[in-house]
Amino acid sequence: MSKEITPRSTDYAQWYNDLVIKGDLADYSAVRGCMVIKPYGFGLWENMRDALDRMFKDTGHVNAYFPLFIPKSFLSREAAHVEGFAKECAVVTHYRLKNDPDGGGVITDPDAKLEEELIVRPTSETIIWNSYKTWIQSYRDLPLLINQWANVVRWEMRTRLFLRTAEFLWQEGHTAHATSDEALEESKRMLDVYADFVENWMALPVIKGVKTASERFAGAEDTYCIEALMQDGKALQAGTSHFLGQNFAKAFDVTFSDKNNKLDYVWATSWGVSTRLVGALVMAHSDDEGLVLPPKIAPLQVVIVPIYKGDEQKSGIDAKANEIIKELKAKGVRVKYDDSDNQRPGWKFAQYELKGVPVRIAIGARDLQNNVAEVSRRDTRQKSSVSLEALSGTIIAMLDEIQKAMFNKALAFREKNITKVDTWDDFVKTLDEKGGFISAHWDGTAETEAAIKEKTKATIRCIPLNNPPEEGKCVLSGKPSSQRVLFAIAY
Amino acid sequence: MSKEITPRSTDYAQWYNDLVIKGDLADYSAVRGCMVIKPYGFGLWENMRDALDRMFKDTGHVNAYFPLFIPKSFLSREAAHVEGFAKECAVVTHYRLKNDPDGGGVITDPDAKLEEELIVRPTSETIIWNSYKTWIQSYRDLPLLINQWANVVRWEMRTRLFLRTAEFLWQEGHTAHATSDEALEESKRMLDVYADFVENWMALPVIKGVKTASERFAGAEDTYCIEALMQDGKALQAGTSHFLGQNFAKAFDVTFSDKNNKLDYVWATSWGVSTRLVGALVMAHSDDEGLVLPPKIAPLQVVIVPIYKGDEQKSGIDAKANEIIKELKAKGVRVKYDDSDNQRPGWKFAQYELKGVPVRIAIGARDLQNNVAEVSRRDTRQKSSVSLEALSGTIIAMLDEIQKAMFNKALAFREKNITKVDTWDDFVKTLDEKGGFISAHWDGTAETEAAIKEKTKATIRCIPLNNPPEEGKCVLSGKPSSQRVLFAIAY
Repeated sequence: MSKEITPRSTDYAQWYNDLVIKGDLADYSAVRGCMVIKPYGFGLWENMRDALDRMFKDTGHVNAYFPLFIPKSFLSREAAHVEGFAKECAVVTHYRLKNDPDGGGVITDPDAKLEEELIVRPTSETIIWNSYKTWIQSYRDLPLLINQWANVVRWEMRTRLFLRTAEFLWQEGHTAHATSDEALEESKRMLDVYADFVENWMALPVIKGVKTASERFAGAEDTYCIEALMQDGKALQAGTSHFLGQNFAKAFDVTFSDKNNKLDYVWATSWGVSTRLVGALVMAHSDDEGLVLPPKIAPLQVVIVPIYKGDEQKSGIDAKANEIIKELKAKGVRVKYDDSDNQRPGWKFAQYELKGVPVRIAIGARDLQNNVAEVSRRDTRQKSSVSLEALSGTIIAMLDEIQKAMFNKALAFREKNITKVDTWDDFVKTLDEKGGFISAHWDGTAETEAAIKEKTKATIRCIPLNNPPEEGKCVLSGKPSSQRVLFAIAY
Repeated sequence: MSKEITPRSTDYAQWYNDLVIKGDLADYSAVRGCMVIKPYGFGLWENMRDALDRMFKDTGHVNAYFPLFIPKSFLSREAAHVEGFAKECAVVTHYRLKNDPDGGGVITDPDAKLEEELIVRPTSETIIWNSYKTWIQSYRDLPLLINQWANVVRWEMRTRLFLRTAEFLWQEGHTAHATSDEALEESKRMLDVYADFVENWMALPVIKGVKTASERFAGAEDTYCIEALMQDGKALQAGTSHFLGQNFAKAFDVTFSDKNNKLDYVWATSWGVSTRLVGALVMAHSDDEGLVLPPKIAPLQVVIVPIYKGDEQKSGIDAKANEIIKELKAKGVRVKYDDSDNQRPGWKFAQYELKGVPVRIAIGARDLQNNVAEVSRRDTRQKSSVSLEALSGTIIAMLDEIQKAMFNKALAFREKNITKVDTWDDFVKTLDEKGGFISAHWDGTAETEAAIKEKTKATIRCIPLNNPPEEGKCVLSGKPSSQRVLFAIAY
């Protein structure tokens, strides 16, 4: 089984694709650039979504649902937004099909042309702020803290499962506030929520920062982000939170009267994470044997495989396994007993390694006599013999330990791969030979940023929050710089 | 507050719209036929969705996600399906916009025309069975029990909030089986799940039945349904479950090898309920004062309103209210303390009646002295004085009692409005004067069914399951009939 997976060292991109497809996370579809999220992959996304949703609700947000379609003219309302988003979109032009008079199935009915084209939402600021205009009159209507779980479409020419697909699932928070400070605070609060989720649920350390002007969301005053490092040394933007100022309020004429009855435009934020996080999860933790999933979000946390000959041995193991399952389920563990008789234990072991199930328990007839089970950790692939009495307690502790160990491993990798660089030669060499994040001085101009991207494909991933001031010289231009920023090649 | 709601007796349709809009369930959007589901309405839908999702998982189903878009040619594959579904659809013809050279914002880029148009899914049988073709080879891959929560689009000319919108949210189950019997059993099992949910969570009694051939889903061999009765005497189809035979397997060439290595086409079901159920909920239970929501799915089950003068009175009430809230929350009750100071208690009472919160508790300074609170039931609008010691226990019992009372009230109404009719004159008269379900003999022909619809707008809602055989004469044609069927005017 594991031999079918291309090793990372041979072809990292193919390794990733093998894991997604053979690990049953997703599949290609008949529609170019759109994927099918298979039940195992969707189970993972459900666990991520549910954890995030609780965090959003705990910070005072409520869910709502806005239309899939956006009138074309809305996209032109906010000048920067249209430049960034209006282009690569699915455009609905007709609302009816009819039978082909020549018998070739169905054709678009030319009589059913829309007066104004509808765009399948690439993001929902415009359609949502159009509603907010009627919902917000007074400071008493603020803050408005709304989130939406939805599908969005951005027509991508080059797609990769989870990482970049034409349609993807995400959540988008859209909040409205009475003051600039409140909106700024909200955008930072949600960045913290994202960092908390990605680090403590996905076991993936992130760097919190702010984007440079050229990497900002189209229509934002500031874009905050969390950046993670993948095993191949490339960075991945894991979530963004935007301070939108009054840009969308002005574009959609959303004003409110304050306590003194003075009219002002409303202040806004938006923030989102998507199914792209599933791709990050796969790339950050997995190995050449398959997926490695953090226990807190793994669809299946523990699998028990019986090893037996004949019905008599099996019934003894069944009884004990059912006891263990009952104990584990009572403690909230997602556990499965795989006593299917159509595959041998060795095949099952490989299968559950491929699927990244954090803990595997094997119970044989001799184990039962000795009152033990063989417990195998997916992350370290260490095996140990555990007495049946201690089993459920050991497993609970082990799941916790795996969660922490995965984070620490990823953190150690990340720390090893942040390199301080002070010359252009070192910059190029480090990028070439080591990859990872490069901490370097930059003169703060868009020109230099573009020149570095042009020469090396590296972009400024972020200016870390709480970045210490440090006098220096720009790694490319030699001009004065007041702080280091983080460069990397990014997904 | 309540005066702003049109009474049912004046204009039932306007009453419904008033409740949806003023009860903050939904709003119109800038896109024709598409609605915005507001946070309060979405909270209701979330509770419904979560309850259904647990029921689906308890019956062995898993969730997945398939593309929003369907290649146009797919719709023509299943002959009956294309007739029923291919017509009123949103058609994506282009994948890019560009700046209008005349400066008028953005226009569709004529160079970005799709080779094959994509249809925004009106339902997903075709795109899903195209995937099943590669997922199913052997009987070991069956049954495949997959559900999807998704948005779908059907271009409707006349729309009504929740009841009929161009875009709506739903779940669609798509299962694959090795035998006809298994598929039939599955379609009936899911009908039972729907009936269980609508009756026990939404407090709405339903009649389980099977559709006549002319009312079947496009591509189904049989369509099972649950039918509910609204307060205006019209029926509403609350859910459908289809036995699809081998139609989609044949259209998409999905075969499997059985235990004897013999190839056969796979057997299928599909089943769905949608946000339309929110409309049914509103119409079945609410009154002229506002929404009446069943406790099990109400976003807010209990609201506590303090009545006080001055800070001293308030702090005493606050302390007691917080105790009660703590007790109720510990028992899983969704409770809110509304001590906002910008509205008077009377305004708040009307507001929570409008929103259908099942139980309201008012605590005044004198109540506190007497160690009591005033408890008000939304369904009966009865008020009672309850001692503070007994309060949380009383509330828990009352929520349960309200859930049952709402079901019983709706059931009594439904039973009173099923009329046995044996002549055409009585049929027309009953439909005119009383409405509701009419139980009448029908000769079993599509011609008579169409003639009755033409003359009266009444359709055969269903042939009830376990319908007793009864010899009779068709109410219109006078030809022999072997059983009664249920007619009604339907939403």
